[in-house]
Amino acid sequence: MTVTVRQLAELVQGEVYGDPDTPIAAARSIVEAQPGDITFVENAKHANRLPRSKASAAVVAANFPKNGLPLIHVADPLNAFVAIVRHLHGRPADTAQGIDPRASVHPAATLGEDVGVYPFASVGEGSVVGPRCRIHAGAVVGRFCRLGADVVLHPHVVLYDGTILGDRVIVHANAVIGADGFGYRFQEGRHVKVPQLGHVEIGDDVEIGAGSTIDRGTFQATRVGEGTKIDNLVMIGHNSSVGRHNLFVSQVGMAGSSSTGDYVVLAGQAGVSDHVRIGDRTRVGACSSVLNDLPADQVVLGIPARPLVKQQRIFVTLEKLPEMYRDLRRVKRHIGLNDE
Amino acid sequence: MTVTVRQLAELVQGEVYGDPDTPIAAARSIVEAQPGDITFVENAKHANRLPRSKASAAVVAANFPKNGLPLIHVADPLNAFVAIVRHLHGRPADTAQGIDPRASVHPAATLGEDVGVYPFASVGEGSVVGPRCRIHAGAVVGRFCRLGADVVLHPHVVLYDGTILGDRVIVHANAVIGADGFGYRFQEGRHVKVPQLGHVEIGDDVEIGAGSTIDRGTFQATRVGEGTKIDNLVMIGHNSSVGRHNLFVSQVGMAGSSSTGDYVVLAGQAGVSDHVRIGDRTRVGACSSVLNDLPADQVVLGIPARPLVKQQRIFVTLEKLPEMYRDLRRVKRHIGLNDE
Amino acid sequence: MTVTVRQLAELVQGEVYGDPDTPIAAARSIVEAQPGDITFVENAKHANRLPRSKASAAVVAANFPKNGLPLIHVADPLNAFVAIVRHLHGRPADTAQGIDPRASVHPAATLGEDVGVYPFASVGEGSVVGPRCRIHAGAVVGRFCRLGADVVLHPHVVLYDGTILGDRVIVHANAVIGADGFGYRFQEGRHVKVPQLGHVEIGDDVEIGAGSTIDRGTFQATRVGEGTKIDNLVMIGHNSSVGRHNLFVSQVGMAGSSSTGDYVVLAGQAGVSDHVRIGDRTRVGACSSVLNDLPADQVVLGIPARPLVKQQRIFVTLEKLPEMYRDLRRVKRHIGLNDE
Repeated sequence: MTVTVRQLAELVQGEVYGDPDTPIAAARSIVEAQPGDITFVENAKHANRLPRSKASAAVVAANFPKNGLPLIHVADPLNAFVAIVRHLHGRPADTAQGIDPRASVHPAATLGEDVGVYPFASVGEGSVVGPRCRIHAGAVVGRFCRLGADVVLHPHVVLYDGTILGDRVIVHANAVIGADGFGYRFQEGRHVKVPQLGHVEIGDDVEIGAGSTIDRGTFQATRVGEGTKIDNLVMIGHNSSVGRHNLFVSQVGMAGSSSTGDYVVLAGQAGVSDHVRIGDRTRVGACSSVLNDLPADQVVLGIPARPLVKQQRIFVTLEKLPEMYRDLRRVKRHIGLNDE
Repeated sequence: MTVTVRQLAELVQGEVYGDPDTPIAAARSIVEAQPGDITFVENAKHANRLPRSKASAAVVAANFPKNGLPLIHVADPLNAFVAIVRHLHGRPADTAQGIDPRASVHPAATLGEDVGVYPFASVGEGSVVGPRCRIHAGAVVGRFCRLGADVVLHPHVVLYDGTILGDRVIVHANAVIGADGFGYRFQEGRHVKVPQLGHVEIGDDVEIGAGSTIDRGTFQATRVGEGTKIDNLVMIGHNSSVGRHNLFVSQVGMAGSSSTGDYVVLAGQAGVSDHVRIGDRTRVGACSSVLNDLPADQVVLGIPARPLVKQQRIFVTLEKLPEMYRDLRRVKRHIGLNDE
Repeated sequence: MTVTVRQLAELVQGEVYGDPDTPIAAARSIVEAQPGDITFVENAKHANRLPRSKASAAVVAANFPKNGLPLIHVADPLNAFVAIVRHLHGRPADTAQGIDPRASVHPAATLGEDVGVYPFASVGEGSVVGPRCRIHAGAVVGRFCRLGADVVLHPHVVLYDGTILGDRVIVHANAVIGADGFGYRFQEGRHVKVPQLGHVEIGDDVEIGAGSTIDRGTFQATRVGEGTKIDNLVMIGHNSSVGRHNLFVSQVGMAGSSSTGDYVVLAGQAGVSDHVRIGDRTRVGACSSVLNDLPADQVVLGIPARPLVKQQRIFVTLEKLPEMYRDLRRVKRHIGLNDE
């Protein structure tokens, strides 16, 4: 399918600068674009990337500097580009609907209207699934779960018994919500399992990445607040409480009984010890290890996590540590000071 | 359901202190308890937490100080509270039993008595499943596996061919046991796969967390000893040998051909290099990296892992490192020593 | 089954040294071998391990020193030992074939000849599966995927829509390819999802470990080059590009929009920040964190990653840091220099 810049401008209600009859065959990111492609630049501060691209046209913001390339000016270049990509390359919609006869839905489960249950998915006794939820192939909704409206469970998601999901929650493939917390008592030389009788509660608009695990509480709920986004292979321990609108990047580990406020960011592979509280808007750098409570509005980094500027100074000085060691020996020799 | 403190005391064979007619509607942890709830305190050293709770009664140990709140004195407060939670909030038992017609059991598999196989689970050729095992939705038991008695495989657990599990093993959702070890030879510019012909052997009473992976050995078994508990998203490499009654906290990685003695603890996100041996009762702190053998009865921390006290001293001194660098320059200027 | 050393030598076309009639009952690795077993030593530099083994015979390379034990000399001891293990202990071949009636194959999917689809596996609309692929129990091939020849998807692998796999790709159980990248825009206090419209492309001869996740690109492909081997629980972020013949050891995390050249090695639990480029043949040590671009042919270690020799010097000097601090105070006192 080949279209013109003008046709794409109409699609996204943008304004053309340059030749509106330029033919466009594909939409690609700025690094991958080839001649004949349209690309986009999200904001004017990245304007200098465009001249290095091979693209034949670009979707840009209203204030973007003109540079000879045909441009489509719009209020939101990313949204407009999404519409163009879908127009040029979109896959046909998934028309599966209803309950596949190869799914297993317990007679005592309640499904809202327009719910889709795919082959080999199961919904357990007493569970309530809100309207328009999609439960993909092999996903398992345990017993006595409660899903809000418009929830998407990708293939092989497992919700243990009693899990509660808000509206518009998205859970990616192979994530596990509600497995037993890691709780034992040491008695007579053995680790004896403490029954994990709590559950997991996930707020509205939460997204959970592939392969992540969120354990049920011992006697209470493990909670994830509204709007929080969790990447792949993240672990959230039992009895923890994640605030609203957090970002947990891939492979983060949050030990049991810890908590975060709102708008907290944990970068990739960061760890939080058990019983630690992190205040609102605090940001933890990648591979950091938070061992103690952090107040609100901090930026920390490192193992153990320290304030960013202090940690960066330590990292820089560490480079000079072997030289400092030699210098200190020279100093001691020079002033005649012995080793102790 | 509302009950009295007296009724609950009878349930757990405890002794009431205070008003036995206090009505109780729910059982919650000490931080979550509301008026009308009963809570518990595991031991007397946490006695000071109770006055801050809103609970209307508590289950406590015999020696627990009286404080005006109705108390139920028992020998084991945690166990008693578990019984109370189940009495007040327990879900109806899962009555599923037998082999679901939607499961796939190979005609040459052998199932013990009272085994439960759920929808979309499969048991392969030649596998032997002990009595009372429960194989939940979508779990896959490969070919020629051997499961002891009372094993629980949660949904979508995968056991590759030849896996051996002892009695009472619990494997949580989406864990994978017996996948090929990461073994290649570099030949003519390519990594050539070394066939992984071993298997995995898991001892009695082992619990394995959601999403964890334990790889098969190359020519031998990868082993996990009796009573060891493994948290979520843990990786155990091929040819490794984990001792008895270990605790591996979430996201631990144990590289190939490494081993641990008995009662070893690896805290969250710790890593162990390949061919490393860790002695009995040694404890490795969170986010640590063990590069060399460790004898028995050590406590280590850090990257690389060092004895705890030494590492803590290093962490504390690191805070002063930038200041040390400036001081050292002042010293050199003061005594007239040049940079080399 | 008991055989003689001579019979095994014939099987692997090797030359016997010592008593060819020595009876052999089993084949085990050098540490596990018992009397009556045959073992192997991969190359002559490990010759000293053999006298400590209890094995009754060994498969060795042509130049291996004779030591009294019956030996089978071959060109490639590992390959020969694999053949012997299979001969003595091999499991009967899996004879499952064709499309299991309990699988779900969309009528608009195209399957090559001799494809095996196991129970509860599904292949979506428009997907093309090459000849001799094996799609194990519960594996999910989404819509419009393309699999080359001889691909193996182990149980519960999930390929999201549009995933492309080359020839001879092996994906282990519960790995997820093509889940949405972790992309959001912060608007009016909320993280708003950026649609992830790209896909994942995996080259020929790639192997992907159990539970690993590779996210789809936003508007482009996330790519893994030919011959690369990825261990368990590895995360590769969206828009990233992994070169050819890389090794990514377990629990590695590679953030979005990063790239590696050819023959790169990332050891266990290493992390790579977003938008970082790593040159050909560069090796990153275990638990390291790569924050900035690395040229070709480097060896780096640590958080943050530094050249190996420099980092090792820092690690060694860190041991002396508390002592340096005390010495520096003594020096200052000695020369009468105050704290600032």
